[in-house]
Amino acid sequence: MTYMSTATPTTELAGKKIIVSGGGIGGASTALALALRGADVTLYERHEEFKEVGAGLQIGPHGVKILEKWGLGDKAIQAGYLPDDMQFRDAVTAENILTMKFDETFRERYGAPYLVVHRSDLLNLLVEAGREAGADLVNGVSVVGGEENAAGDGVDVTIEHRADGSVETVSADLLVACDGIHSVFRPKIVQDEPVPSAYVAYRGTSDLPNDPDMQGLNSVVGYIGPRCHFIQYPLRQGELLNQVAVFQSPRYLDALIGGTDAPEDWGNNEEFKNAFGHTNDFLQGRLGHMWLDQWWQMADREPLTDWVVSDHILVMGDAAHPPLQYIASGAVMAMEDGETLALYASEAASEGDVDWGSVVREVSDERAPRCGRIQTTSRFWGEMWHVDGVARHVRNEAFRQAERGGWFHYADWLWNYDPARRDYVNDPALGELPEGLKDWEYNIHKIQRQRDAGVSAEDITV
Amino acid sequence: MTYMSTATPTTELAGKKIIVSGGGIGGASTALALALRGADVTLYERHEEFKEVGAGLQIGPHGVKILEKWGLGDKAIQAGYLPDDMQFRDAVTAENILTMKFDETFRERYGAPYLVVHRSDLLNLLVEAGREAGADLVNGVSVVGGEENAAGDGVDVTIEHRADGSVETVSADLLVACDGIHSVFRPKIVQDEPVPSAYVAYRGTSDLPNDPDMQGLNSVVGYIGPRCHFIQYPLRQGELLNQVAVFQSPRYLDALIGGTDAPEDWGNNEEFKNAFGHTNDFLQGRLGHMWLDQWWQMADREPLTDWVVSDHILVMGDAAHPPLQYIASGAVMAMEDGETLALYASEAASEGDVDWGSVVREVSDERAPRCGRIQTTSRFWGEMWHVDGVARHVRNEAFRQAERGGWFHYADWLWNYDPARRDYVNDPALGELPEGLKDWEYNIHKIQRQRDAGVSAEDITV
Repeated sequence: MTYMSTATPTTELAGKKIIVSGGGIGGASTALALALRGADVTLYERHEEFKEVGAGLQIGPHGVKILEKWGLGDKAIQAGYLPDDMQFRDAVTAENILTMKFDETFRERYGAPYLVVHRSDLLNLLVEAGREAGADLVNGVSVVGGEENAAGDGVDVTIEHRADGSVETVSADLLVACDGIHSVFRPKIVQDEPVPSAYVAYRGTSDLPNDPDMQGLNSVVGYIGPRCHFIQYPLRQGELLNQVAVFQSPRYLDALIGGTDAPEDWGNNEEFKNAFGHTNDFLQGRLGHMWLDQWWQMADREPLTDWVVSDHILVMGDAAHPPLQYIASGAVMAMEDGETLALYASEAASEGDVDWGSVVREVSDERAPRCGRIQTTSRFWGEMWHVDGVARHVRNEAFRQAERGGWFHYADWLWNYDPARRDYVNDPALGELPEGLKDWEYNIHKIQRQRDAGVSAEDITV
Repeated sequence: MTYMSTATPTTELAGKKIIVSGGGIGGASTALALALRGADVTLYERHEEFKEVGAGLQIGPHGVKILEKWGLGDKAIQAGYLPDDMQFRDAVTAENILTMKFDETFRERYGAPYLVVHRSDLLNLLVEAGREAGADLVNGVSVVGGEENAAGDGVDVTIEHRADGSVETVSADLLVACDGIHSVFRPKIVQDEPVPSAYVAYRGTSDLPNDPDMQGLNSVVGYIGPRCHFIQYPLRQGELLNQVAVFQSPRYLDALIGGTDAPEDWGNNEEFKNAFGHTNDFLQGRLGHMWLDQWWQMADREPLTDWVVSDHILVMGDAAHPPLQYIASGAVMAMEDGETLALYASEAASEGDVDWGSVVREVSDERAPRCGRIQTTSRFWGEMWHVDGVARHVRNEAFRQAERGGWFHYADWLWNYDPARRDYVNDPALGELPEGLKDWEYNIHKIQRQRDAGVSAEDITV
């Protein structure tokens, strides 16, 4: 299998001025995808450089296919690592309960390999490719507002130069807000807040070739256990080891149940030290490799059913659908968003004048149900990882069964995706969880529902 | 497929005097199996008639095979019902999550059909067949004691005539104590108490042909749900509907956690009335058919690794291994016990003088690990039925997967049993749960462990 190392730019969007707010993976992907269709793209990033927080990133085949379309397949693989498989292990016993092989059968089914890559490396590739494709990627500028223009045929975008605080208005055909979980445009659609999951992540990268315990690691390994999990995989062609340790913060959970404010530093080192005592010795021995000076309090938001601010303003990426990380699709969703917008806009342009109001609604109609399902499935998947007691044993057996019986049918909806098919436009119900999960309730919702019903803290069931 | 309607009695045990204590299914089975090998069997039952509490009884193919050996296959099937399948449904939604077909494939794999029968009907058949085979089945007499005789070649058994309280001593080669969960002989091996499960059963039988909601029922149907379940199946060739409603008693559970005595009437009608509110409407509508004047507080005992009181005294049946009911093997275990003893004793007799000490130890070595596994698996199976939240959805999916992937491999150890193979004598580790379940902890134990460790009631996790 070979991967395109250059894309074939087209010109359908020539002359269309599009402003992208935010230079994370979502914004950079969107700028690149649009520039590859000939659009006149300007991306504003408020920081003075393009950078990503965190370390490793998993790109399922649904994402690799897009990177290939953008001519970045080879480069991303060179920069990253193609694991042989993903292995789930019980965090208590270290027993392997499911191996998902990323072999030829996998690649044929999903049309691409499974890739892991450093977030910064991927972002650098996207930024570089965007610039090569002609997009103008500007640092040190925030997009602070945007309104439909007086003629109703475009958008007036307010930008602020961070260096001197000066503000100016620029006009465009379209403003795409990829401005993250704390988006300034999402509140124009819905006034909501991030939903903390009570889980916190510690991360760390280290020297893999000189780590005696990790020789031969060529898998994504996930130890899943009661109230915690631990992920390991190689990056940079095996030069770097990426590790993530995630656990439920007792202080956050207690505050949520008690209806009080959680301490600012929930998930701190003290909690980290106590969070993995019930896991196997190997895993506990690995915790010394984690960074202790920062940690990530993990949150998502409720799925948003409409991403359209107005005919010429659309939210995408984490601004539209910040997920929990459990099905490793946050970055890929943002890449899918960018490709979908570029595709639908260029198709519209091929047929005549672009009706941007139609384009953004079609993007929203296709993407919102899909991303909502990914967000909800991520919540479910996380809860399933973290169960205890008899549930843990039933989960382990369900995983073993999935290996015996073919796990593909759980993944097809996620990885066999092509925005050109407009599956979700045609059948928005695809965005719902499978029938058997209809009455599943996210644990955080369950706690809140009980609190709202006046159940006292000691009687709340988690 | 036809079933033997008469057994072929043999004479290996001619002249061996064996006393069986207890005329339940276990004692009657043992008397029959021994009498069919020519033994001189006397069974003492303290009640004035042979009767069974409860109503329906499930006899898996491992039990039907034994009934066939005893010449009761046809009669038991005539008296009972051969369901087409067993269906598990989610008690909340009524969704069918697993159908286990009792078809030709099933019968060929396990060598017999799956039978459901009224407990009284089965007991009557066993008693009648035991008498036909020459056993002396005596009512109104309790076995109150037993000691090795002075010569060390037999047992002196103390019996009490219930009518007048008179006591006498009778001698025998062997005493088999099938005297139930409150056995007078088990304490000679271990001083333990029944372990209440916190669950209580309501039962009821009703007229099936005139029940408009139940027309066409030809399955064993089990609705399994959070903290409760509900079972339905036909009996007596479809003339009778058997229903069992089981739920966790909040008062018993609270007392257990709090370390106080549970009220005597835990599981009473008041609790029953509130126990199924979260289940589907159909199920709730069926509860009106249950008897309200009695209910069964369900308990088992810890597995017993040695059933031998002395060279000439053996405990069997519920005296040795009272189980929870979840894998429907209590009666069948007792039948297996009887057949195993008769088989091993007759094999020993064929080779010369019977060394009863060796026979009872061999029976114990074969049966104790198997019955221990059945008891432990029943506890696990029950907990799996009763999970809530995300665990319930994972359980449902594990059941769906088991249907897709072939559920047989979960049942082979249970239903493909032949005591003649001496599988457990040869490999006692067969009595352990599968590797992946090694660190599962029974919920009742988990509560007790926390209490023993001084965890306060409000902090105990269930």
